[in-house]
Amino acid sequence: MKLGIFDSGVGGLTVARSLQRSGCFSELLYYGDTARVPYGSKDANTVTRYALEAVEFFNGANVDALVVACNTVSVVALEQMQRFSNKPVYGVLEPGVMVLEQLPEIDKSARVLVIATRSTIGSGEYQRRIQQLGYNNVDALPTPLFVPIVEEELYEGAILQETFKHYFKALPKPDVVLLGCTHFPLIAEPISTYFDGAQTIHSGEAMLQWLKQHLDLPEQYAQTPITILASENVEAVKRVATRWQLNL
Amino acid sequence: MKLGIFDSGVGGLTVARSLQRSGCFSELLYYGDTARVPYGSKDANTVTRYALEAVEFFNGANVDALVVACNTVSVVALEQMQRFSNKPVYGVLEPGVMVLEQLPEIDKSARVLVIATRSTIGSGEYQRRIQQLGYNNVDALPTPLFVPIVEEELYEGAILQETFKHYFKALPKPDVVLLGCTHFPLIAEPISTYFDGAQTIHSGEAMLQWLKQHLDLPEQYAQTPITILASENVEAVKRVATRWQLNL
Repeated sequence: MKLGIFDSGVGGLTVARSLQRSGCFSELLYYGDTARVPYGSKDANTVTRYALEAVEFFNGANVDALVVACNTVSVVALEQMQRFSNKPVYGVLEPGVMVLEQLPEIDKSARVLVIATRSTIGSGEYQRRIQQLGYNNVDALPTPLFVPIVEEELYEGAILQETFKHYFKALPKPDVVLLGCTHFPLIAEPISTYFDGAQTIHSGEAMLQWLKQHLDLPEQYAQTPITILASENVEAVKRVATRWQLNL
Repeated sequence: MKLGIFDSGVGGLTVARSLQRSGCFSELLYYGDTARVPYGSKDANTVTRYALEAVEFFNGANVDALVVACNTVSVVALEQMQRFSNKPVYGVLEPGVMVLEQLPEIDKSARVLVIATRSTIGSGEYQRRIQQLGYNNVDALPTPLFVPIVEEELYEGAILQETFKHYFKALPKPDVVLLGCTHFPLIAEPISTYFDGAQTIHSGEAMLQWLKQHLDLPEQYAQTPITILASENVEAVKRVATRWQLNL
């Protein structure tokens, strides 16, 4: 199975990494819209317009399915993308919520914290889906500074810790943190540590689990080559991919 | 004189504010390309393409001159904009460097620090122009985190101070800091304080001084109305303008 992966920029590489390491796919094609990143602070209409341009690209790219490796796009544009794509399109919301249901030691009384960009949190989509399942202790918080902090590779240290305090200090301690932005897996460990070992849900791992449960995907490939394309500066995207330990 | 002001997003509002308060202009027309902000991390080719679309817009907008209220655009696209515009186009680099020459207590032995986005610093344009004037102690540093910090309105506090330490701790103390990004005037005071009262150069004030010296601009208007337009979410731009104390 040859999978397309779409993101607004580099964040989706954390999803690509999970998929590449799984051995379930013959080939990956990643496309990042780096010329117009970030999407997280843009209008739903604008994001949908850009996402449909990506669909046009993938419609001509000979993939078997398309993964939307971006929470913002999954929230606002998934249905439209599915309508205009000639292949199945999968977003990260449903997988993230599915994994929540499968975590050990988490029941409906668990305290769930969703963190994401302003647009993802503002949409209320994660909160709505999680509450529909019967979880009543759900906090949701936009944490936009984590994106540039990750892009500056400040995965530890005082800036990150002060930003944790700024965002988290008024919150009750969660049992599980749903990382609703594909940049955040790179700071999953310090977030978990800040909250005394809270579990974290990672869009890439959630997507992999979801695909395995919904498609016939034996782990049969010793290597999964990935092609990386971008609307600008593809070399910068490849450098990030290397730093984030994808196998180029 | 009716002036057009172009920026990639909201940062240029600090320039618009200086121009609005001066009483030198009959009217201002601000356009922010919010659908594609930020430009600071994008390729020169991409930024130039976007800037020329803005020129097309202003060519039809009946302004007497166009101010580029964005350092990134001024560095990479000013000449092309001047070629395709039907009115004069002014960038912020020349004014900033001119003001450096006019500061009290600053001579050629002064230590000058330029801070800006990665693309502005990477171009070397400010450094080249300042060194050409005979300044030998010039440091230049990309400080990209200041942009989201300002957009999150963290104008003071621990995150800002830790970010100062992160960027500045290895630097010799400057006598003057050239703020090479239109977001940075909002943290000019804490930057100056961090460096024991170093002077700061602000693109908006520099542009105003430059225009006054090069054009016939009596301070004749009690009020200068400003029209704000954007490629998306103009209401968000207007909210920022109000918070930054423009007179809408």
